[in-house]
Amino acid sequence: MLILGLDPSLSCTGWGVLRVEGSRIAHLANGEIRTQPRAPIALRLHYLHDGIAAVIAAYAPDRAAAEEVFVNKNPQSTLKLAQARGCVLAACGARGLSVREHAARAVKKAVVGTGGADKTQVQAMLAVLLPGVAVAGADAADALAVAIADAHLG
Amino acid sequence: MLILGLDPSLSCTGWGVLRVEGSRIAHLANGEIRTQPRAPIALRLHYLHDGIAAVIAAYAPDRAAAEEVFVNKNPQSTLKLAQARGCVLAACGARGLSVREHAARAVKKAVVGTGGADKTQVQAMLAVLLPGVAVAGADAADALAVAIADAHLG
Repeated sequence: MLILGLDPSLSCTGWGVLRVEGSRIAHLANGEIRTQPRAPIALRLHYLHDGIAAVIAAYAPDRAAAEEVFVNKNPQSTLKLAQARGCVLAACGARGLSVREHAARAVKKAVVGTGGADKTQVQAMLAVLLPGVAVAGADAADALAVAIADAHLG
Repeated sequence: MLILGLDPSLSCTGWGVLRVEGSRIAHLANGEIRTQPRAPIALRLHYLHDGIAAVIAAYAPDRAAAEEVFVNKNPQSTLKLAQARGCVLAACGARGLSVREHAARAVKKAVVGTGGADKTQVQAMLAVLLPGVAVAGADAADALAVAIADAHLG
């Protein structure tokens, strides 16, 4: 079973692919898709769509997961984030992948053991759970964390 | 000059294509892309992306336009709307089309003459500006209105 974890955002979308067999989790790949801040938004969104489509074509994951969007912040940030997220979900839909959503607290609980964990704790646990893995950046780390949570949550 | 007007939403995305030559506006086509409410969201977003990609492939518009999102309402609705919008913009970006955004008031002012016009007035003016055109529905009408506004706003 291959799980694709996603952390969509307009400037940088993180992704990570894990292989899960029973309770064993192995890392396959992770990365980040960055877009040019000054490019037209339609083009940036296309790059995200295309980039995730390429990841799916390369690894053929069986399922995908992302964190639920937290919508209570700045509405303009929610708008940008949701537009990016829409493209990334559409790229999954194009390959028949539906995307399970997990609350941020559930992801932290699955990875660290407590829903109140901070980013540093999550990254420290990633190093323990996926030893020796070079993580592309903070967004790729978040994507791997959501994939781990998805594996744990069955 | 061909202009594609877009009115993205998850359940039904309206589109309309106009040919503009100087101050003359001619209707080429309009339609609506509906998605199944019970289908997985990733699949619905993929259908929107694919549908708009097909419209762009068929008509090869020179530019595209959509209304600015009004983000001050229910954040969950903004999230759904913005995800749909993200897919539609990405489909434009895939063909090198950037999407100009116009405020709702500017669209109404361009079509009816006053920014405070209601939907009925906009639809009545559409019938005058594009006589004899069969409009696919309310979302296609909104898409044609934003294309007309885009033509007027140069």
